Amino acid sequence: MVKIKVGIAGLGRLGKIHAANIAFKIPNAQLTAACSIVSEELEYAKTNLGVTDVYTDYREMIEQADIDAVAIVTTSSEHCWQIEAALDAGKHVFTDKPLGVDVAQCKLAEAAVERHPDKVFFIGFMRRYDPSYAYAKQKIDAGAIGTPYMVKATGVDPESLVEGSIKFAETSGGIFIDMAVHDIDLMRWFLGSEPVQVHAMGTTFKHPGFTAVGDDETGVATYQCENGAIGIVHVGRTAPHGYHVETEIIGTEGSIRISPVPEKNLAVLYNEHGAVQECVESFPVRFAEAYRLEMQEFIDCIAEGRKPGVTVYDGTKSTDIAFKTTESWKSGAIVKI
Amino acid sequence: MVKIKVGIAGLGRLGKIHAANIAFKIPNAQLTAACSIVSEELEYAKTNLGVTDVYTDYREMIEQADIDAVAIVTTSSEHCWQIEAALDAGKHVFTDKPLGVDVAQCKLAEAAVERHPDKVFFIGFMRRYDPSYAYAKQKIDAGAIGTPYMVKATGVDPESLVEGSIKFAETSGGIFIDMAVHDIDLMRWFLGSEPVQVHAMGTTFKHPGFTAVGDDETGVATYQCENGAIGIVHVGRTAPHGYHVETEIIGTEGSIRISPVPEKNLAVLYNEHGAVQECVESFPVRFAEAYRLEMQEFIDCIAEGRKPGVTVYDGTKSTDIAFKTTESWKSGAIVKI
Amino acid sequence: MVKIKVGIAGLGRLGKIHAANIAFKIPNAQLTAACSIVSEELEYAKTNLGVTDVYTDYREMIEQADIDAVAIVTTSSEHCWQIEAALDAGKHVFTDKPLGVDVAQCKLAEAAVERHPDKVFFIGFMRRYDPSYAYAKQKIDAGAIGTPYMVKATGVDPESLVEGSIKFAETSGGIFIDMAVHDIDLMRWFLGSEPVQVHAMGTTFKHPGFTAVGDDETGVATYQCENGAIGIVHVGRTAPHGYHVETEIIGTEGSIRISPVPEKNLAVLYNEHGAVQECVESFPVRFAEAYRLEMQEFIDCIAEGRKPGVTVYDGTKSTDIAFKTTESWKSGAIVKI
Amino acid sequence: MVKIKVGIAGLGRLGKIHAANIAFKIPNAQLTAACSIVSEELEYAKTNLGVTDVYTDYREMIEQADIDAVAIVTTSSEHCWQIEAALDAGKHVFTDKPLGVDVAQCKLAEAAVERHPDKVFFIGFMRRYDPSYAYAKQKIDAGAIGTPYMVKATGVDPESLVEGSIKFAETSGGIFIDMAVHDIDLMRWFLGSEPVQVHAMGTTFKHPGFTAVGDDETGVATYQCENGAIGIVHVGRTAPHGYHVETEIIGTEGSIRISPVPEKNLAVLYNEHGAVQECVESFPVRFAEAYRLEMQEFIDCIAEGRKPGVTVYDGTKSTDIAFKTTESWKSGAIVKI
Repeated sequence: MVKIKVGIAGLGRLGKIHAANIAFKIPNAQLTAACSIVSEELEYAKTNLGVTDVYTDYREMIEQADIDAVAIVTTSSEHCWQIEAALDAGKHVFTDKPLGVDVAQCKLAEAAVERHPDKVFFIGFMRRYDPSYAYAKQKIDAGAIGTPYMVKATGVDPESLVEGSIKFAETSGGIFIDMAVHDIDLMRWFLGSEPVQVHAMGTTFKHPGFTAVGDDETGVATYQCENGAIGIVHVGRTAPHGYHVETEIIGTEGSIRISPVPEKNLAVLYNEHGAVQECVESFPVRFAEAYRLEMQEFIDCIAEGRKPGVTVYDGTKSTDIAFKTTESWKSGAIVKI
Repeated sequence: MVKIKVGIAGLGRLGKIHAANIAFKIPNAQLTAACSIVSEELEYAKTNLGVTDVYTDYREMIEQADIDAVAIVTTSSEHCWQIEAALDAGKHVFTDKPLGVDVAQCKLAEAAVERHPDKVFFIGFMRRYDPSYAYAKQKIDAGAIGTPYMVKATGVDPESLVEGSIKFAETSGGIFIDMAVHDIDLMRWFLGSEPVQVHAMGTTFKHPGFTAVGDDETGVATYQCENGAIGIVHVGRTAPHGYHVETEIIGTEGSIRISPVPEKNLAVLYNEHGAVQECVESFPVRFAEAYRLEMQEFIDCIAEGRKPGVTVYDGTKSTDIAFKTTESWKSGAIVKI
Repeated sequence: MVKIKVGIAGLGRLGKIHAANIAFKIPNAQLTAACSIVSEELEYAKTNLGVTDVYTDYREMIEQADIDAVAIVTTSSEHCWQIEAALDAGKHVFTDKPLGVDVAQCKLAEAAVERHPDKVFFIGFMRRYDPSYAYAKQKIDAGAIGTPYMVKATGVDPESLVEGSIKFAETSGGIFIDMAVHDIDLMRWFLGSEPVQVHAMGTTFKHPGFTAVGDDETGVATYQCENGAIGIVHVGRTAPHGYHVETEIIGTEGSIRISPVPEKNLAVLYNEHGAVQECVESFPVRFAEAYRLEMQEFIDCIAEGRKPGVTVYDGTKSTDIAFKTTESWKSGAIVKI
Repeated sequence: MVKIKVGIAGLGRLGKIHAANIAFKIPNAQLTAACSIVSEELEYAKTNLGVTDVYTDYREMIEQADIDAVAIVTTSSEHCWQIEAALDAGKHVFTDKPLGVDVAQCKLAEAAVERHPDKVFFIGFMRRYDPSYAYAKQKIDAGAIGTPYMVKATGVDPESLVEGSIKFAETSGGIFIDMAVHDIDLMRWFLGSEPVQVHAMGTTFKHPGFTAVGDDETGVATYQCENGAIGIVHVGRTAPHGYHVETEIIGTEGSIRISPVPEKNLAVLYNEHGAVQECVESFPVRFAEAYRLEMQEFIDCIAEGRKPGVTVYDGTKSTDIAFKTTESWKSGAIVKI
C-alpha cells in the first residue's frame, strides 16, 4: 500500500483534528510535515503527531518537505495564496473552508486549479461527507423524495461559545460569512440549482455585543433558485441545548430531515424533566466522522487519480453567495446573485 | 335519536370521569340517576352533572330509577353482586375493572351474564379502546406484524402517587392484582392465546413501606402461552417522569410499540437539559379518550343490539391470571394457570 | 347548570364538527337551531343532531330562533355581514376564520363588535386552544424560553387533498390567504409583536394546475416584527406523509417545537422500512380537540361574562397580513405592513 | 510515541475489524504479525493490512513474532488455551468474547491471568466502550438515576442473517450462549450485583430450522440478583428492521434507555409510510466505534501500565450465567446461579 505524504499548514483547533486524522486514521496517508507560526503548535506536532519535519514558513514547507499534498487549515485570508503556491509546486491541495475571504481571491485559486488539472483540489465542505448527509444525498439521487424543491437549513452555535463569537465578531465579516457557508453549500448541493436572489435579515435579543460591532446574533436568509426552488438558511449563536445543525430537504415525493434533535448519543434519560435527549456540544464532536471521511476521500482521490465531487467553484460560489447575503442583510433589500 | 338512560354507581375519581362522559360526551346517552354512599358525591351529581334522581342504596336505584343501564364504578369487592343484581333487574351493565376480587365472585358474574344473553355486559378494559392500542390491534389483525409471539408490557405509576399506593398496599392484594390486570388483558388480546404458566418476582428499593405490608414497589412476571408465545409484564410505582404505560407487540414480520415516550403532548422543549419531552402525569389524562370511547361503545352496543368485543370471561381470566401471578411472586415458584 | 342556546350557520365539513361539539360535547351548551342553504345539511341537522328548528335564511334564524349565540361556519365572504347582523340582534358570535375576505369587511365586523361590548365575540383560531399550542404558550409566558425572537411555522396539506386545492385555487385568493392565516396568527401570538414587513415567494414543482390559475403549490414568507423578531411561514399542499403542521418558537433561553413528527397516535411500527411513525391525515383529526376546546371557551365566556383572549382585531390583523404577504409574493418586492 | 506491537490471531469478519483498528486507527499501536489457518486471510493481512510476518501456527507466532501483545479473534473454543499460551509467553492479551465455551476452560484462563499480574488481560465486551453505553454508565455512577434496580436488555439480530444463524444453530450451544453473553455482562455491569437465580424460556414461530436442532428463534430470561435487582434479557434473530440492541437501566430516581430506535443515522424520512427512521443493519456498523475504543483502551492500558475495568472474571461470570440460563431454558425450571 502506497502512503500519500501530507504536510499540514496550521495546527489550531481544526488543524489538530485534520492532522490527527492524517497521522492516525487514514491508512493510506502519512503526516510527514507540519507548518505553523505558533511554536507551541510545532511542539505539538513533534510530541503528539510524531512529525519531525516542521516549518514556520509555508513556502519553505512546500518547497523542501517530502510531501505529495498539503492540508491548509490556516486563517481564511491565507487560503488562496497558499493553494496557489502549493499547486504551482506540484502538490495536491486540501483546504479548509471558506475558499477565500472575497471573490477576487477565490478567482486566483480557481485559476491555479485550472492550471494544474492533474492535481487533486479539495475544499473542506465536510458536511457532504457526514454519514447522515451523504445518506440523504444518496437517497435523493435514488429518487426517494422526487425532485427537491426546498432546503431549510439551521445552524446554531451553542450559547457556551458566545463570548468567543462576540470577540471575533468585529473581524468575522458578519454572521452570514462566518456561519452560513456550509448551509449555502448544502443548499446548492441538495437542490442542484443556483440561487439567483437573496433576502436576508438579522436580529439580536440577548448579546448587544454583536450589534455594537455591526453584527447580529441571529440571521435568516431566503433564496430563490434558478429552477424555482427555495432555500431558507437560519444561523445563530445562542442555542442553550448544544450545537444545533439541522437540514431538511423537501421534494415532490417526500422529505428528509437531518438531526432535528442534535442528539449527543443514543441514550435517552427519563427523569423529573421528562424524556430527555442530551445534545451534542460542538462541531468537532458532531462532525468528527465527517472530518475523517472527507480527508480519506481526498487521499483516495490522489491514490486513485480521481477528482472529488466538490470543486473549487463550489468554494467560490459559497463565498459569493455569503457576500450577497450579507449585502441584503446590511441594505435590507433583495439582492440578485 | 333514542338516548340510552344510565344510572351510575360510585362517583369517586374514576366514577366522575365516566359520569361526565355519559352526561356530556355520549350523544346517545343520558345520565339519569346516580348512587353513592358518600353524600358529597350525590351533591356533585346534582350540581355538576344535573342528575336529580340520586340514591344511597344501589338496589333501590336499579329498582326505581328510570334507567336502561348501570355503570358500576364502585369498590372492586362490590362489582360482582352489583352486576348480578342489575342484570337480574333487566339492566345493561358496564362495570369498571377488575371484574371481581376473586375468581369465585367472577363466576357469579359470569352466570348472571349467561342468564341474560339479551343484555349488554361490558367490562372497562379501556386500554383496548385507546386510539393507539385500537390502531395497533387493527394493524395486527390486518397482518402488519405477521403472527404476534411476544408482548412486553410496562405500567409504572408516577412517583407523585406513591404515598397513596403505600396506604392502599395493605388491602390491595399486592402489586400484580392492583396494577397488572390491564397489562394481562392486553397480553391476552394481542397474543390471541392464553397463558398457561407464570413466573413472577418483586423488588423494593425505595419505599420500605411496601415491603412492610408484604407488597413490593416493582413486579415482573413472565408468561408462557398455549401457542408458545411469551409475555413480559413489568409493573411499578416510582416513575419520576410521569405515568409510564408502554406496550410492545412483537410478531414474525415486525413489531408495534405504543408510547415508548409517554408524551404529555406534541411539544418538545430544547433547553439546557437537551431536547425534552414532558410526560403525561396520570392515567385519567393518558386514557381520557379511551374512557370516553369505551363508554360510547357500551352505549352503541345497547342501541344497536350488539355485543362488545370484550366479555365477562376476559374479566375472569385477568383476575385469575393476576392471582396466579401473585402466587408465583409470593412462593418464588413457577405456577401453572 | 344553565345551557347556552346556540344556532349554527353552515353545516359543511367544519360546520358539522362545530355542531356536533355544541350538541354533544359542551355540557353547558345546547344546539337549538341550524341554518343552511343546502337542504341535505338541514336534513343532517334533524337526523344527526336532533335540531328541529332549521332555517334556510340566516336573518330569519337570528330573529326567530330561541338562541343566545350563533356559530358562523359559512363561506368566508359571508362572515362579516353575518357577524354584524347577529351582534345587532343581540346574539353572542362565534365565527370561523378568516374574519373576512378583505380588510374593509373586517372593519365592519370590528365596528359591530365595538357597538356591542356586552356580547362575546370569538374568532376560531382554534390552534391557540390545541393542548400542545396552549401548553407552549403557557410555558413561554412562564419564561421557559426567555424572550421569543423567532417563529418558524410550517403548514402543509396532505397530497391526498391536492385535487380539491387545485379546483379551489382560482377563487381562494392564493396560497397565503388560503393557508397562512393560522400561522400568521400563531406568529403574532407567540412573538407578542406585530410584523412590519414581509417578503414572500412561491413555487410549483408538481401540479401545474396551480400556476395555471396564478396560484402556487408552496409558499414561503419571512416577516420582520416591530421588536426585531423574525417570522418564517412555509405553507404547502403536497405532503406525502399526511397533514404536517409544525411550529417552532425560539427564545433567548430555549425553544419549543410543536409536532416535528405529526404523529397519528402513540404507536411506532418497526418493520422492513425501519422505525415508522404514521402521520395524522387531516386537520379535522389533528385539531379535533382544539375545535372542542375553543367552542367550550366561547360558551364559558358567555356563561361567565368573560371576554376571550382572541379578539376581532386578531382577525383583521391576520387577514391584513395575509394580503400584504400575497402582495409581496405577486410583486416579488418587500412589502411594508 | 512508543507503539505497542500486536499480533492478531484470526482474521474472520470480526478479526478484520480488530486488525484494521490496530493497524490504522490506534495511534500508539502497530499490527506486526498475523496468524490464521485460512490462507486467504493471510493474503488479506499482507495486501490490506501491510503485515508481512504471518503464521499458520498460533504458538509459532507468539514465540517468534516481534509482538508485545496478541489479539485473539479465533473460534470460541480456542480462546482459553491461546490466552494461556500468550500470557505464559509474556504477551499482553486481548480476547474476543466469550472467554471460553465452558466454565472449566474459563478457570484455566483465570489461572493464567493470575499467574501474570504484570500483563494486561482484556476481554472484548465492547458494548461497555460504546459511547452511548459508556455515557449511561458514567451518568449512573454520577447518580443520575439513583440506585439501579432493573435492567431490560434486548438483542435481536436482523432477519437478513437468519440463514447463517440456522446453520450455526446445531453447534452454537443455543440462543443464550450464542447471543446473551453481552446482555448478561451489561446487566451485571449496570446493576453492580450478581444474579443468583434465572428463569428462561424460548420460542420459535417462524423458522422451524431452529427447533429442529434443539435451538429457538427467541429467548427470554429473567434474573434475580443478590441485592434484589431484576434483569430481563430478550434475545432473538428475526428483526425485520435491522440489528436491534436496546438496553434500559431503571433506577430509583430515573432511567436511561439506549437506542430504543436503533437508528442508522441522523436522517428521518417523511414519505408515504409516515416519518421513517431507517435502522442500523448489523453489529459491525452499530459497534464500529466501540470496537475501536475498546482496542484503544487495551493498548493504552499496556502503554500506561494500567488494568482495564473489565476482567477475566467478567468473562467467566458471563459464560457461567449463560450456561445456567440455558439449563433453565432446557429444563423449564428455575435455576440457582
